[in-house]
Amino acid sequence: MFKKRDVAIISASATKCGEHWDKGLKDLAWEAGVKAVEEAGISGKDIEYLVVGNMSGGMFVGQEHIGALVADFLGLNPIPSLRVEAACASGGMAFSQGYLAVASGLYDIVAVGGVEKMTDVEPEQATSVLSGAMDFEWEAYFGATFPGLYALIATRYLHEYKVKREALAEVAVKNHYHGSLNPLAHFRNKITVEDALTAPPVAEPLRKYDCSPISDGAAVAILAPLETARKYTDTPIIVRASVPASDTLSLLKRRDMCTMDATVNAANKAFSLAHIERKDVDVVEVHDCFTIAELLAIEDLGFCEKGEASKLYYEGQTYVGGTLPVNTDGGLKAAGHPVGATGVKQIVELVKQLRGEAEKGRQVSGAEIGLAHNVGGSGATAVVTILSRS
Amino acid sequence: MFKKRDVAIISASATKCGEHWDKGLKDLAWEAGVKAVEEAGISGKDIEYLVVGNMSGGMFVGQEHIGALVADFLGLNPIPSLRVEAACASGGMAFSQGYLAVASGLYDIVAVGGVEKMTDVEPEQATSVLSGAMDFEWEAYFGATFPGLYALIATRYLHEYKVKREALAEVAVKNHYHGSLNPLAHFRNKITVEDALTAPPVAEPLRKYDCSPISDGAAVAILAPLETARKYTDTPIIVRASVPASDTLSLLKRRDMCTMDATVNAANKAFSLAHIERKDVDVVEVHDCFTIAELLAIEDLGFCEKGEASKLYYEGQTYVGGTLPVNTDGGLKAAGHPVGATGVKQIVELVKQLRGEAEKGRQVSGAEIGLAHNVGGSGATAVVTILSRS
Repeated sequence: MFKKRDVAIISASATKCGEHWDKGLKDLAWEAGVKAVEEAGISGKDIEYLVVGNMSGGMFVGQEHIGALVADFLGLNPIPSLRVEAACASGGMAFSQGYLAVASGLYDIVAVGGVEKMTDVEPEQATSVLSGAMDFEWEAYFGATFPGLYALIATRYLHEYKVKREALAEVAVKNHYHGSLNPLAHFRNKITVEDALTAPPVAEPLRKYDCSPISDGAAVAILAPLETARKYTDTPIIVRASVPASDTLSLLKRRDMCTMDATVNAANKAFSLAHIERKDVDVVEVHDCFTIAELLAIEDLGFCEKGEASKLYYEGQTYVGGTLPVNTDGGLKAAGHPVGATGVKQIVELVKQLRGEAEKGRQVSGAEIGLAHNVGGSGATAVVTILSRS
Repeated sequence: MFKKRDVAIISASATKCGEHWDKGLKDLAWEAGVKAVEEAGISGKDIEYLVVGNMSGGMFVGQEHIGALVADFLGLNPIPSLRVEAACASGGMAFSQGYLAVASGLYDIVAVGGVEKMTDVEPEQATSVLSGAMDFEWEAYFGATFPGLYALIATRYLHEYKVKREALAEVAVKNHYHGSLNPLAHFRNKITVEDALTAPPVAEPLRKYDCSPISDGAAVAILAPLETARKYTDTPIIVRASVPASDTLSLLKRRDMCTMDATVNAANKAFSLAHIERKDVDVVEVHDCFTIAELLAIEDLGFCEKGEASKLYYEGQTYVGGTLPVNTDGGLKAAGHPVGATGVKQIVELVKQLRGEAEKGRQVSGAEIGLAHNVGGSGATAVVTILSRS
């Protein structure tokens, strides 16, 4: 039986998410990369391998070959550098590849980045680009959009489990509250349940505050073998597992529209590899591209029974201070969703929480174990990563 | 010191390259995948991990999320599945990731695919899509195309080393000759030096026969630990090394336009890891997106001194039967260049050669060691893979 090396995160940094009119894709990657390198106290020359998550550089800014591009712009040539794409789970997938590279023993210092520059195209064009994450021939070709697909899921879910739209609103209100405390968040405004319920419709039952924004942003995490991690930081964060899984792209082929089996499979394997139980998790980052997705995620990750997630939200348990703080940075909804960067941005937030370095009001007290959950499309890819404070 | 597992290829298959008007991206991946699975005598359920090389699914056919898509269409859910992109080196990069996954001990049976569907857009649009592999801000934005960039390289090379255009023609003639013997090749016609020299200009000094075509195609290789490979095949092919390296995207930042440092770096490391010398290599697949690229490759891989490659071509040494048979399948020029598939297609050809299963007239007698060289863009990525017959 193969005995892998333990892997730790020695630094993690992200840009602010938002509409960065003054920054291109390379600038965003550079900003997050330089911050992470400085925080680790290493030089770029120490990095042996680079994995970059990016969903649609080609369609957003005419740029593919993003791995080599970032290595070039950060002065890291000639190290191996690749782009990993798994739609909106590109960042999480890149992280899992970086983990593999260190765990295997083939590389020591590995940088994992995620970057997306989305605002150089018009919003309606962005929606069209994003539909590249669905099954083109069976969904996008017929005019499906992601708000539309998630509206189908939401409609079914609300009907099936007799849940009210107020539950979706509670997700948005909580994420905007957390975002208001996070200086890197795209949106810093608090909203009320009433705001969410009366906002302009996007695809019923989803309204404006049910949908994550189109954001520019980048995030970088630097990995090292645990045995040497303390050379770089007093608080290495251990990667206990980072597991991707796949499912059908099109909703029509799923056994159940309201369950993301990729999440279920990735989570079961990740908890098993990490030797950790659900109840031990202190802080969770889930993929709330739409509010309905957050409810599904909490259920599919196994934190409650199917159809029961809304109770946690009505009770306020998913706020910082509750029994299961979720998306303490504001999530995709308020912190932003630069698609290829999101999975790495989640890791950055967990590292901050597990180090006890989150801003006042949003630090989960004594957080020891965190979980990140990153989804591609409507669930064809899910990556579940479990981290712990050493 | 970490001791990795040895890795073997247990099967490898490719589609014919060409203009497949009746097949979409999924169909091509399916065809190559099913052939590889059947050849390995395994079931799809045995595959634990899937890596797919694809350059521009988004811009060519509106489809990203290619890893999960291929897993879905081949019925492999819920296994982890990701797309790797490194421009025209996406296939080689995917192979190196699959190698890592098995070498690490984390996965046993791993499928590596490469696929590109290029002919659903007009040829001039394909040229524009492909320019996503260059530095958008410093090259593509100003109207650069790949024929243009390689024409700059060729002009400099012919001047610097006092090489005549006939040398480029010799590359094309040899590759078309090999292609004429390969049933999977895009072009099966033989050409003469005169044909090549008098063909319509594309970007001087490059003419029609100096440029690889726009092809549809897919290729799949299946990897397993060497220790169990003989369960699946009598002739496992050992992966001795698979090494990527990076360089600047834009030509203007290179120390020398006529040397691809990514190739030099990847080759040096690969030969060192493989404990093999240049003279021991029996058959070579290099990235001849343009004829000039094949001359650079032979030099940068270390098979001859800088500026000396043309001699091997004038002497006919790079034909099957020569001292250094190069692109025995016809190379990118004649066998075709479905960009994201090319790096895996090269592996398929080497496996065929090392097993002694190539068609009559193009089998390298007693081939024991093969090398594949896959380039992204104008050299910002290079992947060098060395295989040997067990």
